[in-house]
Amino acid sequence: MLKPLIYKENNLHVLDQRALPHQETWVCCNRATDVAKVIRDMVVRGAPAIGIAGAYGYVLGARAVLTGGGDVSPAGLDSVYRELAAARPTAVNLVWALDRMVARLEREAANSAEGRVAALLDEARAIDAEDLEANLRMSQAGVALISPGKSVLTHCNTGALATGGQGTALGVIRDAWAAGRIEQVFVDETRPWLQGARLTAWELQQESIPYRLICDGAAASVLATGDVGWVIVGADRVAANGDTANKIGTYSLAVLARHHGVGFMVVAPRATIDRSCPDGAAIEIEQRPAEEVRSLAGRLIAPVDAPVHNPSFDVTPAELIDVLVTEKGVLHRPDRAGVAGLFR
Amino acid sequence: MLKPLIYKENNLHVLDQRALPHQETWVCCNRATDVAKVIRDMVVRGAPAIGIAGAYGYVLGARAVLTGGGDVSPAGLDSVYRELAAARPTAVNLVWALDRMVARLEREAANSAEGRVAALLDEARAIDAEDLEANLRMSQAGVALISPGKSVLTHCNTGALATGGQGTALGVIRDAWAAGRIEQVFVDETRPWLQGARLTAWELQQESIPYRLICDGAAASVLATGDVGWVIVGADRVAANGDTANKIGTYSLAVLARHHGVGFMVVAPRATIDRSCPDGAAIEIEQRPAEEVRSLAGRLIAPVDAPVHNPSFDVTPAELIDVLVTEKGVLHRPDRAGVAGLFR
Repeated sequence: MLKPLIYKENNLHVLDQRALPHQETWVCCNRATDVAKVIRDMVVRGAPAIGIAGAYGYVLGARAVLTGGGDVSPAGLDSVYRELAAARPTAVNLVWALDRMVARLEREAANSAEGRVAALLDEARAIDAEDLEANLRMSQAGVALISPGKSVLTHCNTGALATGGQGTALGVIRDAWAAGRIEQVFVDETRPWLQGARLTAWELQQESIPYRLICDGAAASVLATGDVGWVIVGADRVAANGDTANKIGTYSLAVLARHHGVGFMVVAPRATIDRSCPDGAAIEIEQRPAEEVRSLAGRLIAPVDAPVHNPSFDVTPAELIDVLVTEKGVLHRPDRAGVAGLFR
Repeated sequence: MLKPLIYKENNLHVLDQRALPHQETWVCCNRATDVAKVIRDMVVRGAPAIGIAGAYGYVLGARAVLTGGGDVSPAGLDSVYRELAAARPTAVNLVWALDRMVARLEREAANSAEGRVAALLDEARAIDAEDLEANLRMSQAGVALISPGKSVLTHCNTGALATGGQGTALGVIRDAWAAGRIEQVFVDETRPWLQGARLTAWELQQESIPYRLICDGAAASVLATGDVGWVIVGADRVAANGDTANKIGTYSLAVLARHHGVGFMVVAPRATIDRSCPDGAAIEIEQRPAEEVRSLAGRLIAPVDAPVHNPSFDVTPAELIDVLVTEKGVLHRPDRAGVAGLFR
């Protein structure tokens, strides 16, 4: 199984998603600050993968403190925590994973410094393994919702590359294809970063799943044909009331799906749910650099000083979401009570 | 005033829109087949500009027949007509302009061959001038609909570059800015061909009109802010019932505008209305090459053999159009009777 993050011999090896689909290059991180950089520079992307990378980054930070004879404690690792947490502000999985690492460290207070670092590595590996397990459960639950005979449409990349393996929305799609429940996959190219064109197309091709790449603006006309049964997407942050932040363009698809009577499915592990965030209005939307829109890989496609509005995410109100699939169950028309129920 | 098409000394000079915004290159056409090629290759684009180019192309074809001692008549120019008409099947202005050239040629049957060619040039110049005049009238009518204090959002390029000068939707926007009625312009980059990023941004910049370039997928989140009063677009073909084919992504904006209670304005001269086409279902949608989606600005961005669905246009049903602005008047919620009334 494809895994974008491999921890071995005290290094985190990260598949450079910026070079795909043309090159398979790995970046080797041996310091927490390297991990913050690969998250910030989008060498690794996808909320679950970012969380896993952050956890391993915290391990690397702890190892450095240990080697330097410093204090392997939440306080001693505070600057590591803060550097990693700041690398992608919208991805709630990052803070979720880091908080879990801190909690483990607190529980290991009586252990030796070496033992505490070993425990942190154990915790990071657990986060990684649990993500994969959650994805496999979500895939099963998502597939059960899909009646055979139609196509699906997806946005961004929510596959093995975005997670600890298998994927969220793309995991459902992969297994739905294997189960004979979908005809083909329409893949939004997903400007500006082209995760659909570069990564989802590449993953589907690797597994010989039939797909058609479309420009984001073509999704409405594809939905109007009636051939699509579900729009299936992942999430970067789900608020306590079910409002969902995800890659820019997701909200557009939610409105279009409702207009055409097409189901809109969000597939996200509980780690993506931010119960401290009351609703979508409280979600901070990261603005990415203008350069992402003005150019592609160094090639200018607009006036050199074109003013740009480049929000990385948008917020889909819960009422436009037909189902939220998590590893703890499926919510139809998610709301505050339903989301709370996932944590009981 | 910027004009993308200049006929002088028996050549049609065409501003190469593929090289903008970085280079201002002109392509010189002296045969009808050269004009068909610049239309097909999108050196020139925009329905009205294509119509004007087609008319001048017909003149060049007639000149060649005259020089070769051939028959300067609709029958003698039939292959010229067919080559030009086939260059962009969706742009109704092309066939409209060519039919007008044929009608003029028929009226000049008693004239000498030289006189007939001169009459054709006169007719092409008239089509060019009337387009500009129509645009100026539409701008005035469109501006009157815009209450001050909000922004507008536009798609593709409908400016001077797309027409004989001034522009359709972008003409309204230019004059609305001059009249102090809009705050700024949100410009969809308009994949795959990036007419927004390359051409509309360039035109707005030339005139110091404040704008922000956005990815197509970001339009929904911009509309959700409540800052946008109107989505203003052009048209490639309007059916007899008001259904409108325009650049892929337009239909998406129409659905999104209605969802957010934002006005949706189509600005199109009567030459864009195809009364022989009963409704949107009868409009042929041109599929463009996969390469346009697989690569961006000449650079491969997807697997090299990625299957692609690349419709050049989509169809917006008349019921999603709040106003259709033509040079003969404004239709609110256009329908078959309203459209017919424009021709009385």
